[in-house]
Amino acid sequence: MHPLPITQWLGRYTRESFGSDVVAGVITATLLIPQAMAYSQLAGLPPQIGLYASMLPPVLYALFGSSTTLAVGPVAVASIMVAAALGSIWTPGSPEYVAGAFILSFLVGGLLLLMGLVRLGVVANFLSHPVLSGFTNAAALVILVSQLEPLLGTGDLTWQRLGELAAGIHLPTAAVGVGAVLVLVLVARYGARWLAALGVAPRLRGLLTRLTPLLLVAGGTAAVWAFDLHARAGVAVVGEIPAGLPALTLPAFDLEIWTRLFGAAVAIALVSFVESLSIAKVLAARRREKIDANQELVGLGVANLGAALTSGSPVCGGFSRSVVNFEAGARTQVAAIVTASLIALAALFFTPLLFHLPVAILAAIVVVSVTSLFDLRTLTLCWRYNPADAVALLATFVAVLVAGIEVGIALGVVLSLLLFLWRTSQPHMAVVGRVGRTEHFRNVERHRVTTYPGILAVRVDESLYFANTQALEQRLLNAVAERPEVEHLLLICNAVNLIDTSALETLEDLIEELRNAGVTLHLAEVKGPVRDRLERTDLLDKLAPGRVFLSTHEAIEALSGRTPPSGTEQPPRRRESQ
Amino acid sequence: MHPLPITQWLGRYTRESFGSDVVAGVITATLLIPQAMAYSQLAGLPPQIGLYASMLPPVLYALFGSSTTLAVGPVAVASIMVAAALGSIWTPGSPEYVAGAFILSFLVGGLLLLMGLVRLGVVANFLSHPVLSGFTNAAALVILVSQLEPLLGTGDLTWQRLGELAAGIHLPTAAVGVGAVLVLVLVARYGARWLAALGVAPRLRGLLTRLTPLLLVAGGTAAVWAFDLHARAGVAVVGEIPAGLPALTLPAFDLEIWTRLFGAAVAIALVSFVESLSIAKVLAARRREKIDANQELVGLGVANLGAALTSGSPVCGGFSRSVVNFEAGARTQVAAIVTASLIALAALFFTPLLFHLPVAILAAIVVVSVTSLFDLRTLTLCWRYNPADAVALLATFVAVLVAGIEVGIALGVVLSLLLFLWRTSQPHMAVVGRVGRTEHFRNVERHRVTTYPGILAVRVDESLYFANTQALEQRLLNAVAERPEVEHLLLICNAVNLIDTSALETLEDLIEELRNAGVTLHLAEVKGPVRDRLERTDLLDKLAPGRVFLSTHEAIEALSGRTPPSGTEQPPRRRESQ
Repeated sequence: MHPLPITQWLGRYTRESFGSDVVAGVITATLLIPQAMAYSQLAGLPPQIGLYASMLPPVLYALFGSSTTLAVGPVAVASIMVAAALGSIWTPGSPEYVAGAFILSFLVGGLLLLMGLVRLGVVANFLSHPVLSGFTNAAALVILVSQLEPLLGTGDLTWQRLGELAAGIHLPTAAVGVGAVLVLVLVARYGARWLAALGVAPRLRGLLTRLTPLLLVAGGTAAVWAFDLHARAGVAVVGEIPAGLPALTLPAFDLEIWTRLFGAAVAIALVSFVESLSIAKVLAARRREKIDANQELVGLGVANLGAALTSGSPVCGGFSRSVVNFEAGARTQVAAIVTASLIALAALFFTPLLFHLPVAILAAIVVVSVTSLFDLRTLTLCWRYNPADAVALLATFVAVLVAGIEVGIALGVVLSLLLFLWRTSQPHMAVVGRVGRTEHFRNVERHRVTTYPGILAVRVDESLYFANTQALEQRLLNAVAERPEVEHLLLICNAVNLIDTSALETLEDLIEELRNAGVTLHLAEVKGPVRDRLERTDLLDKLAPGRVFLSTHEAIEALSGRTPPSGTEQPPRRRESQ
Repeated sequence: MHPLPITQWLGRYTRESFGSDVVAGVITATLLIPQAMAYSQLAGLPPQIGLYASMLPPVLYALFGSSTTLAVGPVAVASIMVAAALGSIWTPGSPEYVAGAFILSFLVGGLLLLMGLVRLGVVANFLSHPVLSGFTNAAALVILVSQLEPLLGTGDLTWQRLGELAAGIHLPTAAVGVGAVLVLVLVARYGARWLAALGVAPRLRGLLTRLTPLLLVAGGTAAVWAFDLHARAGVAVVGEIPAGLPALTLPAFDLEIWTRLFGAAVAIALVSFVESLSIAKVLAARRREKIDANQELVGLGVANLGAALTSGSPVCGGFSRSVVNFEAGARTQVAAIVTASLIALAALFFTPLLFHLPVAILAAIVVVSVTSLFDLRTLTLCWRYNPADAVALLATFVAVLVAGIEVGIALGVVLSLLLFLWRTSQPHMAVVGRVGRTEHFRNVERHRVTTYPGILAVRVDESLYFANTQALEQRLLNAVAERPEVEHLLLICNAVNLIDTSALETLEDLIEELRNAGVTLHLAEVKGPVRDRLERTDLLDKLAPGRVFLSTHEAIEALSGRTPPSGTEQPPRRRESQ
């Protein structure tokens, strides 16, 4: 970690890089202005809050974060989490609700910064891909449903009343909203082709298609104003947005409120961190740059604290805007500073022009951007590859929809850990034999191998710890009971990465039980760290006359009296042995 | 599992075995009668409840359990858990409190039976030895403190008022109690020696010392009656114990009460099962018999349901009485049936004689038997061998004392699982080289091995799953970045027992990232079950031109172009590499 990573590259910064960064910064700003307002609306906040969150926070991330191209600001998933958390306490849009957003930013920022300082970046790992996929799919669905109301001008929507949807549609609003969705979808799909047909140069095509959201906002606002659709047809508009920079805010301390928001803050912090980190890694890999998870925590933490102090909602790295920023040629976070400056200019001078901006257009921007969050590939991959992961994914998906986001994520994390533990509690074990004339030993049921009479060589494919010691003991004793000719049981420990105290005691019992049955226990391929620990106990003394061999080959040579193998080559018995 | 295990051996039952069983049953009864009453008192219940729990339940266990010598009845640890659970709802000794004990028996029995029927015997594994040790030490301490009041005749004791203990002692009661403790301790320690000095035959010595609790009860009762210590000196006595067999009871259904007792029932069921199973296993191992965990669950479940129906408190296998039963020569559960019959006779005819039995003597029996539960050996072993286990042990100990038994156990289980997960999230990895001229490859930092230029062979000592994929990716990329000469990265998977979906995706990323850096990834020693799964995906195609080798030796031969090793023999670099 570095106190101020920006200083690492600022000295080498060139005029050429600056040129690239300015272009990328301008292009990203044209995407971020409508997105920031749209995600504000999704969070139940006035549109300027999203703009405020796109000024100081990205600048702070530029100073403290480790990604050169991550574009930080309000994002869809965090916004719906903010809406859920604040909506459970206050009425959306009320002053308390808005002030609650700053408290959330503060809590999220504090948590992230703290996690970064104590180097807890590894916790991101505990949110597995399948759980994240289940969560994201559910969140995208929740966002879609939440945006039907502004998009179609229906009244308050609930899951129960989705059936009455058609009756409640406000036609002029729906025309604007659905029209905007069509424009966004069609331009994304065919825009470049149309522009090519019009003879536009390739470089300009990408730029122009990316301007669609901004042009839509401008065009839609102009149309609503020109035809006075707000007063005449009842098309809902954003209304007055105060011009100017955000007021400095200090989140009010209220233990009860903070306590009630804490769970949501933990969930937002975790999701924000994991999402930002994965975007940053994808981009960094393309340029062979490095991302430091703990530095990311610090960068995001400081950015969110900045949001809390400048009337901003929680922020994190956004996927589409980061990709746009990267592809527009951003070299460093100077691009983000350019973007933030443009947004500040917009907030200072252009907000009065946005009075007639229809909320349906903002909803359309959310709806279209959220469709990219749906991901069925992970589910099909899990289902085919590791059904336990598919279970975790589906359980998270259902739990988020039924019990809410925080409960859903918590359940997904716990379930995926339990599934892993359950698996490790049922270790795979294989009786092994020698492969041909090599020194390599494999499962007798899968390979043509030679076995040796009197010696039972068993490989246990798991660390030995409390959850599986009983199974180990029982299965080894049964294996010996089934083979009365066995005198030596060789336990091959190359997959044993830990022997905990419970397993140590079980091994002691096992040595004794095997001795009573006339069988000597030996160990082979015990790893260094495991052996170091065993040497702190008297297990190796208790093992005698059993020995610890470096390799299975060495063990078999010694135990079979260095005689050539008297066993016969066995064909593989059956394919499945798991 | 077997519907009625007793039928498996009853056909082969001999007259000689019957003789042994009768002797053992009588001896066990002499121990169980005072213990059953003492543990009842510990549970805050009238003494006959413990006797009732020692009649039908052991007979049912004899029919359905799998241990031939486990002696079932009320035990100390379960009794203190019953007292904690019932005491939080009702006043000890009130009719509701007593009826609550039958509800607990019913819930515990139902849970155990259900767990047995769905074959959940493996859950016992999740209560690790260290957690069990921490819990048992704390429970023993709680029991000791709880018995100071009846032992010394003080008023109601609380932790806060332990300091005022000395002032509150009732001298006549304390004289009886401390006297009884001294008798029990001294006889246990020197009894056999004294009897030897008196010329008693060796076989009789053990029998006579085991009679001490019963003789103490008889003698103490006689003394209190003879000197009228109850009326004259205020020595508390058991009072009237209704004679006769228990009334049939059917636990009253009350959703609120059942809900409040449910957590305690789960904890009692779990602890009872684990304790019984471990005692049964120790005894079975001495005679090379087998214990089936699911059968044990059924046996204990039915026994507890029997307790619920016959006014009994929850039961499980008791350590001291099982050992006495075993050492007195019990061959089968016929001994338990003999014991139960004698207790029924005692309840029918002898309870009036026990009116003057001083409660201090029962407390002395509890105190002395509970001292055997203290166990410092596990703590010192953990501390030396695996400090994470010591942390789990101490945390459980403290949590049971501070937050109560159920919370303490739950915390211990969760903590020990988290410690295991934490460890697996930080996998040990080793760069390996060839040991001498063998085909065996070990850590370059621990062994004199040969390495090969251009090939980096890394053994990863953990299953690859979501919690450690990031660490894996980062460390492999760093290892390659530090060695610009590397062209082939060989990942040795002999310790990889699972590759979950998250890890699969990380491997796909890694292949791509390494390819960009001019390095080809190969796998070696992928286990059968792991490989089967990988073949369901396109990972092996993506790996190309990287290959999957059967053994590390084969991989090195192939990748180094079958040339003799051009690397030099390296001395071990440093000892510790974990």
